[in-house]
This record gives sequence, C-alpha cells and structure tokens, in this order.
Amino acid sequence: MARVSSLLSFCLTLLILFHGYAAQQGQQFPNECQLDQLNALEPSHVLKSEAGRIEVWDHHAPQLRCSGVSFARYIIESKGLYLPSFFNTAKLSFVAKGRGLMGKVIPGCAETFQDSSEFQPRFEGQGQSQRFRDMHQKVEHIRSGDTIATTPGVAQWFYNDGQEPLVIVSVFDLASHQNQLDRNPRPFYLAGNNPQGQVWLQGREQQPQKNIFNGFGPEVIAQALKIDLQTAQQLQNQDDNRGNIVRVQGPFGVIRPPLRGQRPQEEEEEEGRHGRHGNGLEETICSARCTDNLDDPSRADVYKPQLGYISTLNSYDLPILRFIRLSALRGSIRQNAMVLPQWNANANAILYVTDGEAQIQIVNDNGNRVFDGQVSQGQLIAVPQGFSVVKRATSNRFQWVEFKTNANAQINTLAGRTSVLRGLPLEVITNGFQISPEEARRVKFNTLETTLTHSSGPASYGMPRVAAA
Amino acid sequence: MARVSSLLSFCLTLLILFHGYAAQQGQQFPNECQLDQLNALEPSHVLKSEAGRIEVWDHHAPQLRCSGVSFARYIIESKGLYLPSFFNTAKLSFVAKGRGLMGKVIPGCAETFQDSSEFQPRFEGQGQSQRFRDMHQKVEHIRSGDTIATTPGVAQWFYNDGQEPLVIVSVFDLASHQNQLDRNPRPFYLAGNNPQGQVWLQGREQQPQKNIFNGFGPEVIAQALKIDLQTAQQLQNQDDNRGNIVRVQGPFGVIRPPLRGQRPQEEEEEEGRHGRHGNGLEETICSARCTDNLDDPSRADVYKPQLGYISTLNSYDLPILRFIRLSALRGSIRQNAMVLPQWNANANAILYVTDGEAQIQIVNDNGNRVFDGQVSQGQLIAVPQGFSVVKRATSNRFQWVEFKTNANAQINTLAGRTSVLRGLPLEVITNGFQISPEEARRVKFNTLETTLTHSSGPASYGMPRVAAA
Amino acid sequence: MARVSSLLSFCLTLLILFHGYAAQQGQQFPNECQLDQLNALEPSHVLKSEAGRIEVWDHHAPQLRCSGVSFARYIIESKGLYLPSFFNTAKLSFVAKGRGLMGKVIPGCAETFQDSSEFQPRFEGQGQSQRFRDMHQKVEHIRSGDTIATTPGVAQWFYNDGQEPLVIVSVFDLASHQNQLDRNPRPFYLAGNNPQGQVWLQGREQQPQKNIFNGFGPEVIAQALKIDLQTAQQLQNQDDNRGNIVRVQGPFGVIRPPLRGQRPQEEEEEEGRHGRHGNGLEETICSARCTDNLDDPSRADVYKPQLGYISTLNSYDLPILRFIRLSALRGSIRQNAMVLPQWNANANAILYVTDGEAQIQIVNDNGNRVFDGQVSQGQLIAVPQGFSVVKRATSNRFQWVEFKTNANAQINTLAGRTSVLRGLPLEVITNGFQISPEEARRVKFNTLETTLTHSSGPASYGMPRVAAA
Repeated sequence: MARVSSLLSFCLTLLILFHGYAAQQGQQFPNECQLDQLNALEPSHVLKSEAGRIEVWDHHAPQLRCSGVSFARYIIESKGLYLPSFFNTAKLSFVAKGRGLMGKVIPGCAETFQDSSEFQPRFEGQGQSQRFRDMHQKVEHIRSGDTIATTPGVAQWFYNDGQEPLVIVSVFDLASHQNQLDRNPRPFYLAGNNPQGQVWLQGREQQPQKNIFNGFGPEVIAQALKIDLQTAQQLQNQDDNRGNIVRVQGPFGVIRPPLRGQRPQEEEEEEGRHGRHGNGLEETICSARCTDNLDDPSRADVYKPQLGYISTLNSYDLPILRFIRLSALRGSIRQNAMVLPQWNANANAILYVTDGEAQIQIVNDNGNRVFDGQVSQGQLIAVPQGFSVVKRATSNRFQWVEFKTNANAQINTLAGRTSVLRGLPLEVITNGFQISPEEARRVKFNTLETTLTHSSGPASYGMPRVAAA
Repeated sequence: MARVSSLLSFCLTLLILFHGYAAQQGQQFPNECQLDQLNALEPSHVLKSEAGRIEVWDHHAPQLRCSGVSFARYIIESKGLYLPSFFNTAKLSFVAKGRGLMGKVIPGCAETFQDSSEFQPRFEGQGQSQRFRDMHQKVEHIRSGDTIATTPGVAQWFYNDGQEPLVIVSVFDLASHQNQLDRNPRPFYLAGNNPQGQVWLQGREQQPQKNIFNGFGPEVIAQALKIDLQTAQQLQNQDDNRGNIVRVQGPFGVIRPPLRGQRPQEEEEEEGRHGRHGNGLEETICSARCTDNLDDPSRADVYKPQLGYISTLNSYDLPILRFIRLSALRGSIRQNAMVLPQWNANANAILYVTDGEAQIQIVNDNGNRVFDGQVSQGQLIAVPQGFSVVKRATSNRFQWVEFKTNANAQINTLAGRTSVLRGLPLEVITNGFQISPEEARRVKFNTLETTLTHSSGPASYGMPRVAAA
Repeated sequence: MARVSSLLSFCLTLLILFHGYAAQQGQQFPNECQLDQLNALEPSHVLKSEAGRIEVWDHHAPQLRCSGVSFARYIIESKGLYLPSFFNTAKLSFVAKGRGLMGKVIPGCAETFQDSSEFQPRFEGQGQSQRFRDMHQKVEHIRSGDTIATTPGVAQWFYNDGQEPLVIVSVFDLASHQNQLDRNPRPFYLAGNNPQGQVWLQGREQQPQKNIFNGFGPEVIAQALKIDLQTAQQLQNQDDNRGNIVRVQGPFGVIRPPLRGQRPQEEEEEEGRHGRHGNGLEETICSARCTDNLDDPSRADVYKPQLGYISTLNSYDLPILRFIRLSALRGSIRQNAMVLPQWNANANAILYVTDGEAQIQIVNDNGNRVFDGQVSQGQLIAVPQGFSVVKRATSNRFQWVEFKTNANAQINTLAGRTSVLRGLPLEVITNGFQISPEEARRVKFNTLETTLTHSSGPASYGMPRVAAA
C-alpha cells in the first residue's frame, strides 16, 4: 500500500507539473501581455571581461517579452576595447556615461579613413613597419547622451579613451522583421569570446561562445585570408579568456576625426572623409547618419528651467530610425517636477534610469495600478502600449532614456494644454464623469503646461494660469 | 484495491486532459488555419450599459484567430453617449444603422472647434458660467454607411442624436504591427467602465474594468490637473455602474458642423476648422480624412439596377487605410442576385450581414465546401485568404459589409468577364478539365458580367449574351 | 500488485510523453533557431502526376522553420502542363533546367494576347469552330536561369514545350504578411488535383485534394458560368486522377510571343501586348515585370573567367521583389574556386544546388561549425541570418541558386577587399586577436579579391598581390 500512495503522490506531482506547464504555455502565447504587475528590473546575467562587463536583462521577463525587446548594459573601463560583434536584430544604444570611440563596418562601403602619408603596402620586416599606413572605415567620437542606431548584421566596436568607465545601454528589437531568427538576441563575435556562453538563451546547453573564425577550419581561414596556418589559428583565439572587452596595450592609434569644436589635425583626414570611391551605395547606406546627441538642452523639445527638459529622437530627425523601427526620448527633471500622465499610442517604451530616482505609477487597460514605486539609477521598467504612466522626481535630478518600438512613437497626455481632456467637448466630460460644467472646465483648462509641471504644493486651484511650455 | 482503481481512473483522466491539451496546443500554433468547417458566428459576450450594449465576438474562434482580428458591435440608444476609449489596435468601423456624432482626440492636434463667442477663460462663479465658451477637437456627423478608420491609442466617442438605435460594427486588427501587445483586443477607458470585466480575455482573472484615472492616486490626478482632491476622486468614477454607454442628461450642446448639404450655421465654425495653429502635424495626421460613406450607389464600383451594387474603400480612396492595413467592401443585392464566385488574393475577409439573408458557399484549399448555409442579419462569417466564396441573396435585399486585412485587397473571380478562366488560354482549359474546345469556349465566354449576375432560371446557355457591368 | 506496477509503468510512460511534448513545445517556440546542426536536405514528399511530379521539402524541418519558408521542386515532362494553381504566399521560382511557357492570370488585367483574326464570338456548331479565335492574358517563354516572382492568390501555369524535363524550384515565404493564413504552404487548384492530399500539413486528416470547382454545388457553377449542369460537373473533374501535371493531347496552340531574338510572327501579337484597354491597373500591376534571367554571365555582378560568376537579383533590378520581400542570387564556380566566407546581415538564405557539388562550412552565433560537408545537385541547405558560410567547389562546376528573405539582402564578407577586416582599424585587429601589427596587415590586406578566390595551393603569403574583381 505504501507503493500505491507513493504512486499517488507521484501522479499528483505529475498533475501539478502539468498544470504549471499548461498555465505557463497559455500565458506565453497568446496572452503574454496580461501584466497584472510590473517591476523595476535589474540585470539577470553579468558577463565579466578583462576590461569591463556586459550586463544582460532577462528577455523572458513578462514586461520585456510583451514589449518584444531585449536589453543590455555595457560597462567598458578606461582603455577597454569592446571587440567588434554584430547582432541578428536592429539595436538602439544610448551612451549613459563617459566618452570614447566607435566604429562600424558597413558592408560594401569604402575605407574612408586613411592615414595622411602615402599608402605603403610594401614592407620587408618589423624594422620598417612604422612606414606602413592604415586605412579603415569611419571612426566616431561618442560621449554621454549620444544615441546610436545599428542595423542587424553590422559589426560595431567601442573604445574607451576617457578616464571614467564608458557606460552604454542598448535595446534590441526582437519582434521586428529586421530580426529573421527567433525572438532571442544573438551576438556574433568577430574577435573576443564569452566564456560563460549565452546564458540568456533557454533550452540550450551552454557552451563557451567563441568567435566566428573559431568555427571554420584553420586551412579555410588561411586560404581565404592568404595567410599562414599559424596566423589563421591565432585568429581563432582558442586560448583567449579575456571575454569581449579587452584592455588595449600601448597607444590606440586609430585614425579619428578631430573632436567636435576642434580644428582638423590634418587636412588629409577631411579629404579622406569626403573622397569616397563610388559604387552607388555611399550616398545612402554608407553615409547615413546613425548618431545624434540627446543631452543638449538647447535642442530639447520641452525645456523649462525650473523643471527640466525632454528631447525626442524620431525618424524625422534621424531617418535611419524609420528603417530600424525604433526611437528614443531623453528626459531630465528636477526634484518634485512631474511628467504629466500620458500613454504611448503606438509603441512600447523601455525606460532606463541613468541618474537619480523617481516615483512612478503605471495603469493598465483594466484601470489597475500595475506599478507604484521608486525606480532608481540603473533600473529599467517597460511601459506597454496604451498603459498610462506618471513620473515624479524624488531626487535632486532624475534622468532617464526611453526606447520606443516605433520610429515615430506618439504620446497622448491625460492632462495639460494638448491633452485628451482638452480635446473632448465639455458635455462628454460632464456626462462621463458625472461632474458639473464648472468642474469640467477646471478639469479641461486648469493645467496649461503640456508635459512638465510642479508636483508639490497644495492642490487647490480655481482658474487657469498663464500658459507655459 | 478500490484505491488502485480510483488511482487508475485518475491517471486516465490526467492522460485525457493532457492529450486534449496537447491537441489544442498543436492546433493553436502553427496550424490555426486548418478550417474544415466554418460557421456563421454570433456574439459570445454582451456588455450591458445604461444606454446601450456592446456585443463582442469570441476572437479565439478558429475563423477569427486565423484571420488575426476581433470583432464587436456597439448598440447605442437614442441620447446614448459611448464614452471615449482607445484600443491597442487599429480599428475599422461601419455604421450599420442610425445616425450620430463622433469625436476623436488625436495627440498633438489643436482644438479646431471653438464656440462662436470670444473665448472667455475667466469666470468667477457659477453665476457667470454661461459666458464661458468651450473649444475641442473636431466633431463629425455620422450616418448609416459611414466607414471610419481609427489608429491605435486614439480616443474616440460616439453620441446618438437620432431617434433609432445607432449600430456600429468594428473590426480590430490584432495581427498587425500597429498592435504591439499580444493578440487580444484591449479597450482603455478614459471615462465609464465595464462592470463585467474583459470577459473575452482567457486565462485572466476577471475584475470589473475601470477607467484610467481610477488607477492613479487621487493626489496625482489633483496635481496633474490642478484640481481639488474631491474632483479628482470624481474622475475615478468609483461608484459608477453605468458601463461605457451612458444616457445624456439634458441637451448635448457640443460644437458641430452643419449637416452635409446644409449651410454653415456660423461662419466662425468654418474658420475654426481651417484656422489651425501650426506645429507641422496638422497637415498630416490632424487633417487626415478618416471617414467615407459606402452607401451611396452613385459612387458604387459595380451598379446594376436589377441586381444591386458593390462599393469598395481602399487606400487609394482613403489614404489612412495604408497606415492601418485594412479596407472595406459594401454590398447590396436583390433577391436571387448572385455575387460571382471569387477569392481574396491577399487578405482575409470578415463578412458581416447588415440586412436580409443569403445562401453562401465557401471552398477551402483542399477543394472542400467548408460552409454551405444561410447567413442573416447580425451574423458574421470569415472568408480566409484564398478560400472561394459565392453569395446568393435569399431575401428581398441582402446587404453586408466586408472588412479586409489588407489596405488594397485584391479579388479574383472564378467566372465572368474579368475572371481567371477568361485569362487562361483555351488549351489550358481543355486539357485541365478534359472538355472539348466548344465547352471550353462556353466556360470562358458565356458569362459577360464581372461581379453580379442572376442566379435564378434554368441553366442552359449556348452563346455569349450582350455584355453588362 | 501486478496492476500497481503496470499502473506505475503507465504513469512513467505518461511522464515521458509529457516531458517529450514539453521539450518539443519549448523548442518550437520561441527557440526555433537554436540550430546546433544543419543538414543538406532532400525532398520529404513526392506527388506523382501524369506528366511529372512535385517534390516537397518538409517545412517543419528546423532550418526551414527558422527561415520561415517552404520549398518545392516541380519536374514537368515534355508536353506536360502544370495546371493553374495559386498559393497563400508570395513565391520566388527559379528555372533550373529546360524551357517552356508560363502564364499568370492577374485579377483585373485585360486579355492582352489575342489571336490575329477578327474576334468571332458567334459559332453555330462544331463545324465552324475553327473560325473562333481565343484571347487570354500574357504568356511568356521561360528558360533555364529565369527567376520568377509571383504574388499570393495569383494563378500560374507552366507548359514544357521542350524535349528535356522542365525543372522549377520555388521558395514560399510563410513568415511574411503577404501570407495571412498560418505558416503552412497551401496550393489552391483551379484544375487538376492531388490524390495524395496535402501530406506536408501536420495534424490534419489527409484527404485527396480537389480543385476549387469541386467544392461548389454544380448548379452554382452552372449558374455562374451560364453553362449546363453536365459541363459544370466536368469542371469538377471528380474522376480525374492525373494529378496537377497533365500530358497535353495534340498541339498546344496558345498565343505566344516570338522567342527572344526572333522577329514577331504576327504584327497583331505585338499590338495585343501593348494595346491594353485601360482601367488604371495596367500601368502598375498588370505590366509589372516579374521575370529576370540570372544565367547570363555578361550581366553578372562578379565575373572571373578562371573562377566563375555571381549574379544577384534584388528589388533595384526587379521592383516587384520589394513587394514580395524576397531576392535571389545565382552562383557558378569552377573546381577549387572558393566563395570567400560571408554572412547575410538581414536575411535568411535558402541555398539549392542545381549542378555539381561543393564543400560547405557554416558557423553559428556560438562560433560552432554547424555544418561541414558536401552538398550536391538537388540538395538544399538553409543559411540563417548572421551565420557565416564558406563554399568550395569540389566538382568541375558547382552551380547554385540562393533565395533570400529580404528584397535587398546584404552580405558581409570575412575576407577580401570589401571585408569587415578591411574596415577595422589595425589596432582593433591586433588587440582583438593578440597578433602583431605585421600579422594584422597581412590579415587585412593580403586578399585582394572581393568574393571569389582560388582555394587550392599552399597557404603561404607575405604580401598583397595585384587586385582582381
């Protein structure tokens, strides 16, 4: 009889397992956006490298699954080089801290950066190697506030030439047709490696992740690159355990443009940037601007000295965003400033806090508050399409970046001069909320700001004040 | 031993449960369009409101799942106001009966409807409230036959200013990228509520659905709208049980344009509609036409006095349809008229009967008749991409609307002057069907109509008749 | 006790079943691209017809599932007619062998091919039937190398008017929005049939597949086509077992243009092709070019007499490809030529071998070699987005076609004059691979070709050679 009851408990376990599984499956598809509770998310995996680390958010978390994106943070130490890799998805990155250099290698485009001396391909030995001059594709300076669009399959590298860590956050659009694989982010390494493996992938046996050359036979690499077998094997980096962010030994002498606001160091560089040899591609893909800075208050969309500023970057500003179907918003508000309640009409938003902290409330389709809490530096929260959100700074300064899954994300506000309440006839408001015409007028017209307001002070108002931004 | 057999039966139950579940899962994805049988569908849920009701079709029904849409019918009684709400999806609506007013609040657009007197924002008390003049976004008259495109996240309201019920049917495109949540329709209420909850959502514990304000703290609303706490609480409508369609008390005096064909009542209104203050948006989104009427036989694509008419609305007529990836067709045929057999090349069609009844046959990819029956007023049937369909009116007049999941849905006909048979060489027909050249000629050329024909009378024809529409 | 242990084993079986199922589900979605091993694929189903056969690849194979496509090969014998059918998906076809005629029937377009004599719709009996002249839509000659785009829902037929078999391979884009059903390919037959049924569909009880007319009532067909019931029944082809490729009895006298390079046989034909009666559609859909030949080395993108050639076809060459979101590449290389290692930045590629054989290595995102083997004539292999691939001919000539799931697929090369290594600064290479500047120079500059190179000979190079294509 003991066996029978152990059998019974076994079957019960099985039943529970099965029901748990069924529930999980049912939730996964098609009800993956029934978000009854949101959380401020922190990275779930840390990949340590020689000169930095990569922090990865779990893209299976309901908020991110529903939004169809994954998210990562790159911390590159001084003199750290994030080795070139590419992804199966479009990517939008934001430089949260620090400064550095960035290069992308776009297929079919020319090496427009050439060293100033005459090109000297001939060299006989190490003694004369200093006479050789390099040529490569465009290198850009990046700094805090830069927002960088990257198309799938395009290799990109970063180098920290400053003193403080270079921190970059990136969103990866898994749900777009730009990603033609499944809904997982996949870095492909040209150099470097990831000894821990792709820990964010479920249902895959983890192996250390190697570079692409590693997968080919060394004789294939030798033949393709016309090099000897030994060098081919070195490209495979098999004994390398430095990860994907390595420390540069000695100077990092890549050809680079002068910093913004400086005079060009050498005339030839300027020429190199414009003197492209033509195959028709240059005017479109090769020369497409992919970077813009969102930290300059003088170009803000909303700027109120006492409250803060909001800047947006959409495909009207940066046309390549139309192609990658993402856009961004940068916000910076002072203590007790409030971003008026709003919802995203046609996008999910991924909000990442770069500085300070804020009190945030988020309301879902059922009219329930699914988040009411503090988010602070380094945390992330997703605001799904249609969900309303209000933000109030609770530290001296609250700064964040929002990535949106639409090249032209539209915001609707619940309060303010361009709000939905202003657009509704008074009769709709009086009948909808069962309030008097006088109350309805106050509801419609009292707040004259469009986006930012003070959140402190007593809440007693009688008539509209003078309009402001 | 009794325990053992009860255990056995328990395990068997478990096995059956599991197999049922597995089968359901396997059918759900990826074989969700293996439709061996179609049915005329009626609403599965009714949400009752104070002044009307909302009838919702189960979007998990195989036909609708396969088509990637959901469907609802709104019945708004006289003096009923459908309170402003928005959706996570693009929506295409058709006014099946009645007349009324409609307003949409498009983010960033100006309040172009202003009362004629000078704007008087200053008021000191209730005594002078009559001097106050409202301003709000565009209000339109709607009437039977109007087809209305709505983008996701845009709040919309309806008011029935007629005597008979205002009936509107709407299709929601769940499968489009415009919807960035999961494949469920989600109304977000600005005012009003839904005491029954979102009963069409599976795997979610049902709670009464509240308006958006309900989810925020009242002090947040008070601060954002600069109103007192008491009014903020009233916006949350917590004790309201009227649902989302409420009865308007007293006159509904919104500013509205004159009815079509009437002279403008006040010059200022006209000016108000054109005198937009510019932020660049107006010329595109704010002024985009979103409505067209499909009930005017004079603009029909096919019109035969004895048989009926067919009108289509695609993105060439209404450019916003390109954006929302939907189009519509309106048909009205007399007793015994037949719509020649046809298939949709690049769209699923959702057919809704507004009047009368018809005999319909639908054939799937396997050459099987998957529907052969009567559909009548108020019923819906989906015709998946590629499935052939023939319709014959069996009442005095059969009228329907078809929503198609493509901004430019293409129809192929099996018979008639522009049919696929006409386009095929005679030799393909003789060899394909093993018929004589004479028979093939009759098959190709006997029917000279393109779309509509008589379905009655004996079927014995020898030679082509004079061509007609 | 025997019953208890049989119960135990029963439950264990159940548990195993369940775990197997769960694993399969977990793998199916969302991890369908975790391809640890690729294989050269051959057809899994053969549908035999009177005058040919259709060979279908299993689209549930992980490679094809991940790529979102299905694939088929059509072998049409001399005098064989592939009867008109249409699909729920966009289709891109390549004529691998032979020659023939092709016709498509595009909805709403005119019958632009008319016989030269005056149109004689009136005939009194069989005796005068020779006076009747046919008219139908465009017929085109096709030959080896032709690449043909077909939109969903458009009926297409092929006729082999040569002596050798006509072999056509087609890729079907299941993942595109052009397909509005589920991710299964579905042929709809206008004539012909498929006695074996749609064997590639899972979870559907197989029935012989009939033509569309079969599904309608004969009286409906008689009324729609204005023919007698007997002919209507003949259109249903119920006793036909010839399949979908039938042998043409007697001459196949369709109106056709002269072969390329020949003078028009009759002036009227030319006129017929241009003299379209206008409904606005002709200039766009009706006259859109859908075919291009990829076997002409004189229009190759890369051509090296000693090595071979590569031709691509994208939406810049054939604008309709933008609409169907597919493109193609044709390659032909000689023994020991190598296609330099490369990856597809924004597409999956479906490689089909038309002649000869090659050694192929493919590397995944983890740096693992997931394929290393021979592929030969008639085999197919999918190369997922981002996976790197190298090809070396191992027979006298290796010829293949690649279908890509992007209208403008971009290739990145790992080696050569336009490779990613050339675009990287020397310092990135030295630091990334821990090699000396001299080695890095060789890695960057030794290979001067862009796409094709010799793969034989000793691998010992010191300095760049003269540049070549």
